[in-house]
Amino acid sequence: MASPRETDGEPTRLSRRRLLGYTAVGVGGAVAGAGAGTGTTLAATQESAPPADAAGSRTIPFHGPHQAGVTTPVQARAVFAGLDLREGVGAEAVGRLLRLWTQDAAALTAGRPATADPAPALARRPAGLTITFGFGPGLFDAVGKPEAVPAGFVPAPSFSIDRLQDRWSGGDLLVQVRGDDSITVAHAVRVMLVGARPFATVRWQQAGFQYHAGVAPGSTPRNLMGQVDGTVNPKTDDDFDEVVWSDQGWLAGGTTMILRRIRMDLDGWDRVPPPEQERAIGRRLSDGAPLTGGGEHDAADFTRRDHHGLVIPADAHIRRARPGHGRHRILRGGYNYDDGVDTDGNPDVGLLFASYQASFARQFVPIQRRLAALDALNTWTTPVGSAVFAIPPGCEPGGWIGRTLLES
Amino acid sequence: MASPRETDGEPTRLSRRRLLGYTAVGVGGAVAGAGAGTGTTLAATQESAPPADAAGSRTIPFHGPHQAGVTTPVQARAVFAGLDLREGVGAEAVGRLLRLWTQDAAALTAGRPATADPAPALARRPAGLTITFGFGPGLFDAVGKPEAVPAGFVPAPSFSIDRLQDRWSGGDLLVQVRGDDSITVAHAVRVMLVGARPFATVRWQQAGFQYHAGVAPGSTPRNLMGQVDGTVNPKTDDDFDEVVWSDQGWLAGGTTMILRRIRMDLDGWDRVPPPEQERAIGRRLSDGAPLTGGGEHDAADFTRRDHHGLVIPADAHIRRARPGHGRHRILRGGYNYDDGVDTDGNPDVGLLFASYQASFARQFVPIQRRLAALDALNTWTTPVGSAVFAIPPGCEPGGWIGRTLLES
Repeated sequence: MASPRETDGEPTRLSRRRLLGYTAVGVGGAVAGAGAGTGTTLAATQESAPPADAAGSRTIPFHGPHQAGVTTPVQARAVFAGLDLREGVGAEAVGRLLRLWTQDAAALTAGRPATADPAPALARRPAGLTITFGFGPGLFDAVGKPEAVPAGFVPAPSFSIDRLQDRWSGGDLLVQVRGDDSITVAHAVRVMLVGARPFATVRWQQAGFQYHAGVAPGSTPRNLMGQVDGTVNPKTDDDFDEVVWSDQGWLAGGTTMILRRIRMDLDGWDRVPPPEQERAIGRRLSDGAPLTGGGEHDAADFTRRDHHGLVIPADAHIRRARPGHGRHRILRGGYNYDDGVDTDGNPDVGLLFASYQASFARQFVPIQRRLAALDALNTWTTPVGSAVFAIPPGCEPGGWIGRTLLES
Repeated sequence: MASPRETDGEPTRLSRRRLLGYTAVGVGGAVAGAGAGTGTTLAATQESAPPADAAGSRTIPFHGPHQAGVTTPVQARAVFAGLDLREGVGAEAVGRLLRLWTQDAAALTAGRPATADPAPALARRPAGLTITFGFGPGLFDAVGKPEAVPAGFVPAPSFSIDRLQDRWSGGDLLVQVRGDDSITVAHAVRVMLVGARPFATVRWQQAGFQYHAGVAPGSTPRNLMGQVDGTVNPKTDDDFDEVVWSDQGWLAGGTTMILRRIRMDLDGWDRVPPPEQERAIGRRLSDGAPLTGGGEHDAADFTRRDHHGLVIPADAHIRRARPGHGRHRILRGGYNYDDGVDTDGNPDVGLLFASYQASFARQFVPIQRRLAALDALNTWTTPVGSAVFAIPPGCEPGGWIGRTLLES
């Protein structure tokens, strides 16, 4: 009798185990879009560990031309921390911090403890961890390079709809930690913030969530209003080159990011009848398809009318937010937040809107101006925090994030 | 040639799909210990849906003699909400609320929208959801049944180590929502709290996390100090009958719960050398094994001495917390919390310690008195919140949670 492999093409015991392992990785949340463009790397223990463990051992390469955590498909959990440099911290000290952060981030994202890891046992499961660093507008003066502020990188303007609070805005440094597991993320945040203590203080820290790995594979994220949110996002490497990655000076291979904390009035939203909710967004709530028909990923027909007028109304969110004729595209990587109830007993929930774009002024600002001027969703959303960061390019092993700025 | 099934025992195409499906469910987080004792039910779409979706469609039976979410193995995410009854809300109104909650919890945990679901699209993925209800000490007077307070169910005593804050303590009603997915949990919390509005106000809401499904299958949870936490927990149905489920009056089939918010001084803890950290707990940090040797689940030898004295010191946490000769056992189901930084910039992290026991006075209180009197971990932990609840038994379809009290 022929071996099973020959008779029916069934996988052998080993390769079946591999199959299960890769399935679990698939469950663990899609192949990395990969800052480095190299996809998911399975940890070295893959073959010897039980297959079901693969969700914990999934790693996303830290090194590469771009930082991970930008074009990487959103993981389940994200923590964003904004830091202020301490008085007198200059280029030399910032360089030391960035060398330490780079080294520790490379270790943690590979499933190894950090340099002075307070809890090495919490570093064992990288679980799709990414750690991404950014520079706020104030950093450039502090390191003596005011001329290095990227073109069009301006402190986040306050739009007419904004009710910004200092406690959720600004910052000289960003640490963005994302991953498939909340414990892994919490540990990595702690390592990064403890490492930063001699150099900077924490200005704000915000945590958010998306579908956990395996819960809704292949689905576009939903926000807490129930809307599919992120359908029209750049997806291919060509898109990323066009939309996300800068080619300017020290920022080449990097990008800019804005993080806006957008509180939702869910109570008000819930009183709106579903058909009206759908007209406010321009998509069906059930499946995210444009109101003009087709599936979620089919193009909306912004000219179509019925006897009431435009099917997708003039103030519908997707009409106002759609790319214009210039380069008005952005990459969104938002997270839902639910911080329980505020001191008045009202739910403190919303969206940590994060967007990445090569040019802040040329891509994000025009879109946001259009939305601030008119967007049906403005009725139920209030931006309460805003911070902008330049996200330096990635680095190779031995290098460090920020070197292109600090040694330029 | 014989069919593949006969020649080599390989699964057929269909059953291989099943295999993958069940694997993904395994990844999705272990078989439910099951309030109802009936284990995990795969949603009806199991066979037709892509296998990887099983993590989202995992359901834990709502109905049964016990409420789910007590002996159910901890899921990734938990939100606990404590509510105060509004002035004048009595037995009749509480009964209406509990009928509504029961109906909505049964729907949501099965992956169906609630009665007046504000976002039905967020109800599609039950993802191991459990919703559990409890009664605080103040409820019994409100419903005119002061005599129904379970024996030994006293308002949480304040122990010498406690620094309790009102904002994290007390409450007439508990809603505990746990699940494999944060969006599903957030949606269910919202449905429950909106449903409660006419009857009660939210006093506090606390969110926590454990390993996400599939990240560390079969592992005992770890807390943010890095310790394995929960090794000596009841695990079998016999254990649960002895330790958890009450057999007293209207509470028969129910239990009591205490939720304590325990803030951790991670900065102080990090300054303690690891061997001293291990003596404080009595277990190895790396694998949770007792310091007297063996594996995590081997019994500690509390009499063993070396040239320094007791190997597990007199004040070691596991020595002080171990079951005494009576029925001093409890079921712990704790969650880590990380609420970022407080207004002073200090990390607000710790443990939402939840324990379930048939008799609050006879099981929990003696253990906690021993720990308050002497426990090395007290140096780095401060209880800042405390709330106790009687957890009514489960119900069958058509019944409702709390009926045994309100119609007794």
